[in-house]
Amino acid sequence: MKFTISRTAFTKALNTVSRAISTKTTIPILTGLKLQATQSGLILTGSDADISIETTIKTENPDNLLAIESEGAIVLPARFFTDIVKKLPEETLTISVGENFQTLITSGQSSFTINGLDANNYPHLPEIETTNSIPLAGDLLKQIISQTVIAVSTQESRPILTGVHFILSENNFLAVATDSHRLSQRKVTLETPINGSFDFVIPGKSLTELSRMIEDNKKDIVLSITENQALFTIGDTLFYSRLLEGNYPDTSRLIPDTHDTRISFDAPDLLASIERASLLSHESRNNVVKITVKPETKTVTIYGNSPDVGNVEEDMKPKTAEGNELEISFNPDYMKDALRSFSQATINIDFTSSLRPFTLTPTEDSDSFVQLITPIRTF
Amino acid sequence: MKFTISRTAFTKALNTVSRAISTKTTIPILTGLKLQATQSGLILTGSDADISIETTIKTENPDNLLAIESEGAIVLPARFFTDIVKKLPEETLTISVGENFQTLITSGQSSFTINGLDANNYPHLPEIETTNSIPLAGDLLKQIISQTVIAVSTQESRPILTGVHFILSENNFLAVATDSHRLSQRKVTLETPINGSFDFVIPGKSLTELSRMIEDNKKDIVLSITENQALFTIGDTLFYSRLLEGNYPDTSRLIPDTHDTRISFDAPDLLASIERASLLSHESRNNVVKITVKPETKTVTIYGNSPDVGNVEEDMKPKTAEGNELEISFNPDYMKDALRSFSQATINIDFTSSLRPFTLTPTEDSDSFVQLITPIRTF
Repeated sequence: MKFTISRTAFTKALNTVSRAISTKTTIPILTGLKLQATQSGLILTGSDADISIETTIKTENPDNLLAIESEGAIVLPARFFTDIVKKLPEETLTISVGENFQTLITSGQSSFTINGLDANNYPHLPEIETTNSIPLAGDLLKQIISQTVIAVSTQESRPILTGVHFILSENNFLAVATDSHRLSQRKVTLETPINGSFDFVIPGKSLTELSRMIEDNKKDIVLSITENQALFTIGDTLFYSRLLEGNYPDTSRLIPDTHDTRISFDAPDLLASIERASLLSHESRNNVVKITVKPETKTVTIYGNSPDVGNVEEDMKPKTAEGNELEISFNPDYMKDALRSFSQATINIDFTSSLRPFTLTPTEDSDSFVQLITPIRTF
Repeated sequence: MKFTISRTAFTKALNTVSRAISTKTTIPILTGLKLQATQSGLILTGSDADISIETTIKTENPDNLLAIESEGAIVLPARFFTDIVKKLPEETLTISVGENFQTLITSGQSSFTINGLDANNYPHLPEIETTNSIPLAGDLLKQIISQTVIAVSTQESRPILTGVHFILSENNFLAVATDSHRLSQRKVTLETPINGSFDFVIPGKSLTELSRMIEDNKKDIVLSITENQALFTIGDTLFYSRLLEGNYPDTSRLIPDTHDTRISFDAPDLLASIERASLLSHESRNNVVKITVKPETKTVTIYGNSPDVGNVEEDMKPKTAEGNELEISFNPDYMKDALRSFSQATINIDFTSSLRPFTLTPTEDSDSFVQLITPIRTF
């Protein structure tokens, strides 16, 4: 195997596949990255067994300055090799594999010889037929991920809750996550109906990595699903994630459809106030913030307290306030995550009682997105 | 005590004094910051016993929006109080101290009550007469610190070596540091001769903090020295550091005054090559990079090696090369620190033999600055 390539193009591709490579893997060869030179391009692969990323630098793109002198494959130590490529002196570099997988990297007057591994020992990526493929807009997918992944459980006691549950059929796209203290659900109506129906759970960690790979230029993404794998195709890059096994609990009945008290706020205003209150609650053993709602006087008071340090109280003017008086306590970190997911929007917060979950929804299009938070009993 | 103040001005001053405040102190009151309101201004103080910083927000500057309603002093939990001020909703805030040192912070509709401490229990800052004061240009002082502090020892086995040694008399300003493996010495000729002579050692950590406080706008700084304290006056801010006790070793005879081999390089070119070689040496148990100098062919070869991972070799063309052939090994991290301290300059590297310390000096004005590195014996 021997090829010459643009350092800029190569570095970009190395950064992409490095996202999947962990130094903490139990399978030693997965600390490496696989390079495969073919006449049509150079294929880079990284994997941590849960996620695999494969990207191709194509010969046909002249910017890549890619010249394949001989085909072949090698596995090189990922972090170390990437550091070398970043520090090479010239704009192009040449890689050639010699005997015993010894790999020579040259650029200008600099020449590195590093020990590679046999690419035949690198695990094969899952084979996924892309007949059942679902096109998705990149920016929308990124938004759906950021809105739901916050409610994913970080505890391994119920593994299924560490993922986001997707339910797709016809024009309906639903994503929901819950850690049993809070829930986040996003609904989207697809422009083109899909063939068949899908019900699967993708690990939250995979989605977070995927989200970081989606650039803001709204590239179209294609999703393909098999029994135990999801494949997202983003241009010349393939992102594989395993699916979580097991049945996701039925969350459809958790969201209340009535309310006794409703207030509305611009999300950033309430967020700033909750952030101030949480400064105090974080100093306390129980991380609790209390709000009282008085629709009659249209006041909402936010209250945080730490016996050691002090307390904070803030009167807010909601945009609207209706229904019963209410006093309710909750974890302010859940509230902050939820409020941030609405960005600049105006939201409704609907309560039934002090001990029942409450919901946050956008005032416009309230059916498309709901955040649910379970209160904390303080008496 | 009660006052109203601009949040912007207050936050800036809080950030300044917070540099001196450590959460790891053994003296509980030093985790706090002291506020003292006087008619002429608000004085903030932070200290970790080694370093103390005092800054004054003056009433006379209208930008500070400072209105002192009643004088007094209080100590407040530093990190927590600073977090609160940063998150307050309005551009001004009011602080008033009530009974039992309970302190009320209000801004807009937000009101915090936090527990303060009696300011009478806060340690007094050292009293330093500023008759023996030495004016210094801020940018020059910052440069001197960055060039010498790299060679300060990080080991507490010889405490005196954890500081930078300053020797001042008449027009001569000398700063030198060594950890016994390397040495860095900077000489400056002062425009105005100083009264008397000074010989003192300031902890490297203090100088690093001081350097971060000096803004790039070349503000003039005044240095005052007593038997055990240094005081740097930077505008409205006072920076105190304790001095290290003990005799600094005589370093004047360590710097060789002859050489048998000399090469010259633009510092950034050699730095890039050493960085590449150190990628390999860092993977090895002994972190060693070797260079060979062949003045006859005007080549310098840089070589790094790790038995597990591989090796790197790079031929460099020095700007000049004269004297004997030479092969020498050294810690590349020392070399990188030294090369960075020359910024973009062209430097001479002077060697006597493989086992003798070598020096780096700027080609122009070589007497003003020298970096010395002890080689590593590899045979």
